[in-house]
Amino acid sequence: MNHRLIFKSIGNILRIEALLMLFPLAVSLIYGGKDYWAFLWSALITVSAGTLLVILKPKDKNFRTRDAFVVAGLSWILFSFFGALPFYFSGYFNSFIDCIFESVSGFSTAGSSILTNIEVLPKGILFWRSFSHWIGGMGILMFFMAITQSNASLVNLLRAESTGPSPDKIVPKIRETARIMYQIYFALTIFLIILLMIAGLPIYDAVTNAFSTAGTGGFSNMNASIGAYNNLAVEIIITVFMFLFGINFSLFFFLIERKFLKFFKDNELRVYIGVVIAAIFIITIDISGIYGGVVNALRHSSFQVSSIISSTGFSTANFNLWPTLSKCILMLLLVTGCCAGSTGGGIKLIRFILLSKAVKIELGKIFHPGSVKPVSINGKKVKDDLVSKTALFFFIYFAIFVVSVLLISLDGKDIISSTTAVLASLSNTGPGLGIVGPAGNYSAFSAFSKVILSFCMIAGRLEFYPVLILFIPSVWKKGVIK
Amino acid sequence: MNHRLIFKSIGNILRIEALLMLFPLAVSLIYGGKDYWAFLWSALITVSAGTLLVILKPKDKNFRTRDAFVVAGLSWILFSFFGALPFYFSGYFNSFIDCIFESVSGFSTAGSSILTNIEVLPKGILFWRSFSHWIGGMGILMFFMAITQSNASLVNLLRAESTGPSPDKIVPKIRETARIMYQIYFALTIFLIILLMIAGLPIYDAVTNAFSTAGTGGFSNMNASIGAYNNLAVEIIITVFMFLFGINFSLFFFLIERKFLKFFKDNELRVYIGVVIAAIFIITIDISGIYGGVVNALRHSSFQVSSIISSTGFSTANFNLWPTLSKCILMLLLVTGCCAGSTGGGIKLIRFILLSKAVKIELGKIFHPGSVKPVSINGKKVKDDLVSKTALFFFIYFAIFVVSVLLISLDGKDIISSTTAVLASLSNTGPGLGIVGPAGNYSAFSAFSKVILSFCMIAGRLEFYPVLILFIPSVWKKGVIK
Repeated sequence: MNHRLIFKSIGNILRIEALLMLFPLAVSLIYGGKDYWAFLWSALITVSAGTLLVILKPKDKNFRTRDAFVVAGLSWILFSFFGALPFYFSGYFNSFIDCIFESVSGFSTAGSSILTNIEVLPKGILFWRSFSHWIGGMGILMFFMAITQSNASLVNLLRAESTGPSPDKIVPKIRETARIMYQIYFALTIFLIILLMIAGLPIYDAVTNAFSTAGTGGFSNMNASIGAYNNLAVEIIITVFMFLFGINFSLFFFLIERKFLKFFKDNELRVYIGVVIAAIFIITIDISGIYGGVVNALRHSSFQVSSIISSTGFSTANFNLWPTLSKCILMLLLVTGCCAGSTGGGIKLIRFILLSKAVKIELGKIFHPGSVKPVSINGKKVKDDLVSKTALFFFIYFAIFVVSVLLISLDGKDIISSTTAVLASLSNTGPGLGIVGPAGNYSAFSAFSKVILSFCMIAGRLEFYPVLILFIPSVWKKGVIK
Repeated sequence: MNHRLIFKSIGNILRIEALLMLFPLAVSLIYGGKDYWAFLWSALITVSAGTLLVILKPKDKNFRTRDAFVVAGLSWILFSFFGALPFYFSGYFNSFIDCIFESVSGFSTAGSSILTNIEVLPKGILFWRSFSHWIGGMGILMFFMAITQSNASLVNLLRAESTGPSPDKIVPKIRETARIMYQIYFALTIFLIILLMIAGLPIYDAVTNAFSTAGTGGFSNMNASIGAYNNLAVEIIITVFMFLFGINFSLFFFLIERKFLKFFKDNELRVYIGVVIAAIFIITIDISGIYGGVVNALRHSSFQVSSIISSTGFSTANFNLWPTLSKCILMLLLVTGCCAGSTGGGIKLIRFILLSKAVKIELGKIFHPGSVKPVSINGKKVKDDLVSKTALFFFIYFAIFVVSVLLISLDGKDIISSTTAVLASLSNTGPGLGIVGPAGNYSAFSAFSKVILSFCMIAGRLEFYPVLILFIPSVWKKGVIK
């Protein structure tokens, strides 16, 4: 392991985090909140820790795959740790574990909260919660790549952090890729803020909700989430944008390049649109009795479908009270998630497409033993080992899900709450069913369970390997692997 | 497709079924039940149908892979269909769909029932339920292979019906393999009957419960299952034998051949023993408060663990009322199942072992890109495509689980009951949680849901491919594939 390079990268990432803390500090000062001290102290501590780590100079500046994965895993954990400091210093949280949980939930864009009354918090802290979604949505390493020196080996960092089975750069230079991604992200967010203000939201609410939407996070500054505004225009805008942020950002790049055919012929996008329409259709019929007609049912079902499949987790209605079929569909969307390369979570639809095709080919082999048909996506043959890697992903997901549920069930909460809490954490969505439903929160879990769920959120965000690798002892030994 | 060969095989299998119906007929006559007419009529109809199918003589007697899979899928469906006739003629069932459900549940060894009061049924019908477990446990094609003419291509039938990722014959000749398997099965069953009689059960109860145990089925002739006897010796004997029937039968063959080392060094057996001990240990502690001490808790936890992991489904206690942790562990065991090549169901432990090793190797690749380490089981390298095939198995399991739950949730039952009903059907276990818990049954589901669950039971028993292949249109067209 190249420990010096790893420490230096993480140190630089922490120094960036300290800078980012100046934004909520500014917000706090503008709104005259007393929480600005929390950000000042946090920024000072974070920048000091970061500076300590960059003292050692690495001899080799190339990120090998293993270094990149360790950087990804460790930097997300430490970023969340230091990001918890403002919560701790604010004095509004019961314990440091609660602060860690809230911070992990923020950066991983889960949006699950241990707070029972959000509206009492000062504006700076609420801004930091939403801002952490925005930072985590596109990835903290992605930001680091966008501002760091160009280096071909950075592609390994991109692969370690990006979502989906085969992430790759859209332009030859990795720094350019990261910059284009952030430009698209930034432009969409600004556009959303303007729309929300036109729809009637004050600038503070427009900005925080736009950040939470863009990162597909789900932290709101209202106890009743988006439902609190009772504003149809706001709901429609956020419904559309949650859906948009669930699309692969490379596709937006095709749009900019006027490659419209490449955009609309994308396998995953088509399935994404199809799944969303089908889910909205079925749920609308299923809940129309509850909401006295199709129109109101459509309003709530489309918002909820878009919110859950994109892993945002905003709510306008308590779907915990919906019929079994609708609840099952939402939980399924929570697990599948949206598109690879988006800010959304979940397993990602492309993996389901890939494996469905593989199963079809496997069935074909029963007819023609010995035939070798490759799996292709968007007309291109995929790499040989991608199918087994993707299928293994499902196994890892299942294994981590099971172990986490068993550990959490020590708390003695009911099975629905325990299982959906783990699923919602792995998918970075936020709300599940039962006590963690849209009207509930995670405060009832023990400190131990909160640690397990925090682990699930980071593991789910990084798609397992960068976190699992930290459990291999040789990562921590000096000079074992060179 | 070689339709003539397929029809002829299925015809012969149905004629065997008609013969097997003479056993419950005899039982009915011995105990003076009025249900013997049901068996007489059923046997006549079944033998007629079978004879009609064997009229066409196949030109080619070799089972290609595709023919074998279609025979496996179709014969299990038709076997269950004709096996439902005695239930229907007995007049104790509400509808023909109920009879089909009960019959599928019998042969697939699920043991889930739509009956609300079992004890009112005549002895012949109860015998047929348990006997169907015994027949289905080792496999209906396996029996066909044991008595049919030797033919090397029969190995494809074995592969289509056997459980586990890489079934193969234990002796060079396939007919010999089938015979040895049935001899071991028969000997263990007789031994179990004798032990149960020594423990105090009347011969009828000893035989039926032995059949249900051997097939890891779970149909009992008592409403309170094995708990009804309140006989510690019986419980211990059945606990041990449920465990034994969850072991790969090839390993028993090693014991007969005095290859003790090969027996005890088997990877899967070791994991099986380890999982059972760990589960019993944790559950005993978890439920000791309910049962007033460790001794009683151990009695119930060991019985339930052995029953669920082996996919039998007998019960001595209502684990639906146990704490969340214990319920979660039992549901996990229900999904994992026991060993490949046993009469038990579930995903099979060997698949978990295989994929855990594959994940470890995949993690290693992050350290040493380009390294090619093979996965090995029992010291032998497994075939190249076995990992991806096994991982795809998990994906198919997940896909069928999700679709089935969505379809069943149309009934509006709670999520726990709906999801565990599907899991218990896919794993051929029987009881789940909620309304399908050990004190409940499947009678509350709609006819549509019963069809879906029946599909899950057969699909789970045959490990998907032989059933999925029936949905490919070209299987049904004349002469399309040659």
